[in-house]
Amino acid sequence: MTSASQFSSSAHPLDEALVLQSTSTVGQYEGATHPGYWNMVGPFGGITAATLLQAVMQHPDRLGEPLSLTVNYAGALAAGPFTVQAVPVRTNRSTQHWTLSILQADAEGVPVVTTTATAVTAVRRETWSVGDVPMPVVPPPSEHKALVVPGGAVEWLNRYEMRPIAGFIPRTWDGSGDHSLTQLWMRDVPERPLDFCALTALADVFFPRVWLRRARQVPAGTVSITVYFHASAAQLQETGTGYLLGQARGQEFRNGFFDQTAQLWNEAGTMLATSHQIVYYKE
Amino acid sequence: MTSASQFSSSAHPLDEALVLQSTSTVGQYEGATHPGYWNMVGPFGGITAATLLQAVMQHPDRLGEPLSLTVNYAGALAAGPFTVQAVPVRTNRSTQHWTLSILQADAEGVPVVTTTATAVTAVRRETWSVGDVPMPVVPPPSEHKALVVPGGAVEWLNRYEMRPIAGFIPRTWDGSGDHSLTQLWMRDVPERPLDFCALTALADVFFPRVWLRRARQVPAGTVSITVYFHASAAQLQETGTGYLLGQARGQEFRNGFFDQTAQLWNEAGTMLATSHQIVYYKE
Repeated sequence: MTSASQFSSSAHPLDEALVLQSTSTVGQYEGATHPGYWNMVGPFGGITAATLLQAVMQHPDRLGEPLSLTVNYAGALAAGPFTVQAVPVRTNRSTQHWTLSILQADAEGVPVVTTTATAVTAVRRETWSVGDVPMPVVPPPSEHKALVVPGGAVEWLNRYEMRPIAGFIPRTWDGSGDHSLTQLWMRDVPERPLDFCALTALADVFFPRVWLRRARQVPAGTVSITVYFHASAAQLQETGTGYLLGQARGQEFRNGFFDQTAQLWNEAGTMLATSHQIVYYKE
Repeated sequence: MTSASQFSSSAHPLDEALVLQSTSTVGQYEGATHPGYWNMVGPFGGITAATLLQAVMQHPDRLGEPLSLTVNYAGALAAGPFTVQAVPVRTNRSTQHWTLSILQADAEGVPVVTTTATAVTAVRRETWSVGDVPMPVVPPPSEHKALVVPGGAVEWLNRYEMRPIAGFIPRTWDGSGDHSLTQLWMRDVPERPLDFCALTALADVFFPRVWLRRARQVPAGTVSITVYFHASAAQLQETGTGYLLGQARGQEFRNGFFDQTAQLWNEAGTMLATSHQIVYYKE
């Protein structure tokens, strides 16, 4: 069992949040929610996704690097310990398929599935490569002011530096929204070298598209997110503590659910990941 | 155990392919590959995805209609029988989370996982709705010629009518490609009223983006596909046997894998589904 308090203050909050203790069962890990990534009624979805990927990264039988990750938020995690299960259900020559889940004891102590996921890892070779969605031409991070997180905001917002470029949270909630495109520079706070888990969490940083589209703050929550990883570990290492350009857009808002498509580039213009999610909204 | 031959010739090939026999275990079904949807070394990926959704649709405990489906192609199915497992791992008030898999006996008769999947079904209510990706303005299906499937092509191509609008398969494989955007009108052959399973298969109809981008026909195969369903059963019923406008584009081609983002509208311009996939390619 782990809690934030047992870590030294020198550890990065992301590394604290991602600590998973191995158990006697291979692929089963014990973790705990981290107060630094708390959202409204549970952890920030990005940290939950990153935690599932962390279980894959730590697994002794892992083949290759992350290629895709899909996380389904079946129920909110309560503050406290949880169990992660990571099973490599099929290992091919160069790809490996994973099924994952998070379980947490309910009020009666019965383990309940809060999160399901699948992942694919792959050994990649250098091939012909090209990007068909070039990074938008925008002024560098230094020319955009960092968002000042207001007091009373959800805690996880303090774990990220966000420098809005276009389409950020409306200043007035007057129902005047007319698009759903957001661009921002972003990175971990404090600065932390990028890796696959950090990148996964960053793919979920965007506030709900419906807020922007409607200029109205309705309840909303991710139901399922997918991240496709285009970068190698070496490319993430080269990115280091630099900013990522994140771009997100809604495609369709229909009867309680909208989808979001997102792209993440590093400052050098390399596409690191693309991501999609389907999100519940009320009213 | 089922085979194509036991169905009357009046059944639609899609309905034949989607036949799943219940077993004594709730959520476990027996199916069989259908020669009419055969690809190169296994079934067309779209029919496999549709089969997994079919298991959800048939399940006695299903809540609501499909919202999202992610299918991971861990290994090719061999021609013959297979087992589908569909488990509703968590049922909330208005959403239900599923884990799914297909198993097939290997040469020694040992069941092996060929496909993993997760799905979410949901009870939806009418809410404020809007589309942020309007259907492209293109001439109607009647103004585009239907693709004539050449002899020797993979069999499943004969199960679809495709009327290319833009960016179809290159005529010459001369390495001259410069984009990855395809638009086409499409529907089942013979005509068949649209439902969630048919829509799922249609989301995977697009030929590999890398062929278009490079004007070079390299080996390629989907590793993971996600479909987000925006339409209700009633909207699919209204679509009937009409054409869908399919649009697909690659975002990033990198070291053996590219991703594809796709949209599917009906002729009335209603967005029925958005879809994404990550695809292996060689060289």
